[in-house]
Amino acid sequence: MRVREIRLKSRPVGMPTAENFEIAEVETAAPGPGEALVRNLWMSVDPYMRGRMYDRASYVPPFQVGEALQGGAIGEVLTSNDPGLKQGDLVESMLGWREAYSAPAGMLTRLPESKVPPQAFLGVLGMPGLTAYAGLLEIGQPKEGETVFVSGAAGAVGSVVCQIAKIKGCRVVASVGSAAKGDWLRSVGVDAVVNYKDGDLLANVRAAAPKGVDVYFDNVGGAHLEVALEVARPFARFVECGMISQYNNTAATPGPSNMTNIVGKSLKLQGFIVLQYAHLRDQFRREMIEWIEAGKVKWEETVESGIERAPGAFLNLFTGANTGKMLVKLA
Amino acid sequence: MRVREIRLKSRPVGMPTAENFEIAEVETAAPGPGEALVRNLWMSVDPYMRGRMYDRASYVPPFQVGEALQGGAIGEVLTSNDPGLKQGDLVESMLGWREAYSAPAGMLTRLPESKVPPQAFLGVLGMPGLTAYAGLLEIGQPKEGETVFVSGAAGAVGSVVCQIAKIKGCRVVASVGSAAKGDWLRSVGVDAVVNYKDGDLLANVRAAAPKGVDVYFDNVGGAHLEVALEVARPFARFVECGMISQYNNTAATPGPSNMTNIVGKSLKLQGFIVLQYAHLRDQFRREMIEWIEAGKVKWEETVESGIERAPGAFLNLFTGANTGKMLVKLA
Repeated sequence: MRVREIRLKSRPVGMPTAENFEIAEVETAAPGPGEALVRNLWMSVDPYMRGRMYDRASYVPPFQVGEALQGGAIGEVLTSNDPGLKQGDLVESMLGWREAYSAPAGMLTRLPESKVPPQAFLGVLGMPGLTAYAGLLEIGQPKEGETVFVSGAAGAVGSVVCQIAKIKGCRVVASVGSAAKGDWLRSVGVDAVVNYKDGDLLANVRAAAPKGVDVYFDNVGGAHLEVALEVARPFARFVECGMISQYNNTAATPGPSNMTNIVGKSLKLQGFIVLQYAHLRDQFRREMIEWIEAGKVKWEETVESGIERAPGAFLNLFTGANTGKMLVKLA
Repeated sequence: MRVREIRLKSRPVGMPTAENFEIAEVETAAPGPGEALVRNLWMSVDPYMRGRMYDRASYVPPFQVGEALQGGAIGEVLTSNDPGLKQGDLVESMLGWREAYSAPAGMLTRLPESKVPPQAFLGVLGMPGLTAYAGLLEIGQPKEGETVFVSGAAGAVGSVVCQIAKIKGCRVVASVGSAAKGDWLRSVGVDAVVNYKDGDLLANVRAAAPKGVDVYFDNVGGAHLEVALEVARPFARFVECGMISQYNNTAATPGPSNMTNIVGKSLKLQGFIVLQYAHLRDQFRREMIEWIEAGKVKWEETVESGIERAPGAFLNLFTGANTGKMLVKLA
């Protein structure tokens, strides 16, 4: 079976470009014993993938130049040589960035029965959703009546953070990069929105959170982190989920000038990776499905179609082109 | 009774100078009912006092211009109108920066019986000791075999951190500003010393901690914090106790350029104030006295004599003139 895949052609320096990717046609082997042949329906592009394009040791190994990229994907089993999978089953894998593949059944997870569309398992019910859930609840520990400030708030993670914080009885202040994103977040219950491209961020956050911030969920780093250190209340928790504003830096970029607030206000800043919270996945999915069915959590998708559009979809993450989960529809 | 006290004459801008202080002679009132008249024997100067010289809300109220400063002190009861205190008792108070005072017994704590000299209750057995103990053990959570990096390591807090980390079976790397301080720390068991004034700090810390750092106990902030973010191992804990390098900044000073390590290495940075750990004080004193008697914890003092030397002693904290606890002997 001839299929297309996207390979890392060269390591990006600074902002990635289309030139860093190449598309190739390969022959997918027939599935061996214990394997299944899967056609991908959806693949995910996520900001963390930028980190895997650097050649450095990290919590996941770097992508290799000349090889297909990897990432979350939802596919349909075409043929199976494993008793646990049958034709038509929907499966989740880390074998995105390709149209189809054969893989051992152990690398595939069958999607649970549910009324939600399968691609939601790449977003609100998948890794970004668990990231939001575990980061906010385990590290942020929001209490009723507290103020939660979220950057990158209209993204796949941020938008779920905002809604879980509302469920927990918090006041939510969201930073976004467009009026349309702000309108969407207000429509799902966010209390106040600031547009970081519009006016003085510190003044705007101060106005939106006059009593200060108890939890900061950081997706972007940089200027937002500096503002959060300024408006933090004593004992505030900073969920350090991502710093997308810094991922494409080519030179050392100065950090926040107000780090002494960490001492003076007894702040906690904690980074994490979602893999640490794998034990919460079942509980998370159960609760999230309840919230979705109760209309308490909604989501948006930004969809590109065709594997040839996958690099562009990934690049668009860094310009804020997506509202909600950025997806590529492969079939 | 005529006594001298040190007042804040003006709020420092940048590095404090002798001009920011004034000495005054006042009449101490005779003790009223329930009060005691106390002659101070020792007073403490500590870096945190710099923060109280700014006119801003914080976890302790700011010092007031024209009024006597406050701080830890050990004194001797001269006369008492309270049944719980008698002449000759040694008491701890926050009424330093003056030679004598009358105060309600409730503001005084009688020192426990022990073989250690009374001024140790301003250092290794007092607030700096508890700061080291609670910060390292509660936030740092060092495990046997881990590497602990300590900045300001020859100070009142840092030197205790180093020795508790050794008791807990860690490898200890200490940053100091002079060879003599390094020699002292080596003599009490520190494994490796770097002199931050001598050569490339990052390269020197890397050489001293080739496997990286699991716990960073931060007393100084600035360049040391940036180095620590660089050498931190995944899941390292940063005990954000102080940032003395930043306390006298007059303009915004860029922070660490490598903040993304917080996300990428799942680091935890946590600030604290020792008051949060008041419930550990009895346990701390019990353990610390055991360690002292077993020869496992030693300390140094840098002593100035006479209240007129107190401002100078305080200023010397910012030039690293002290080894161990900086004290002023008043009588």
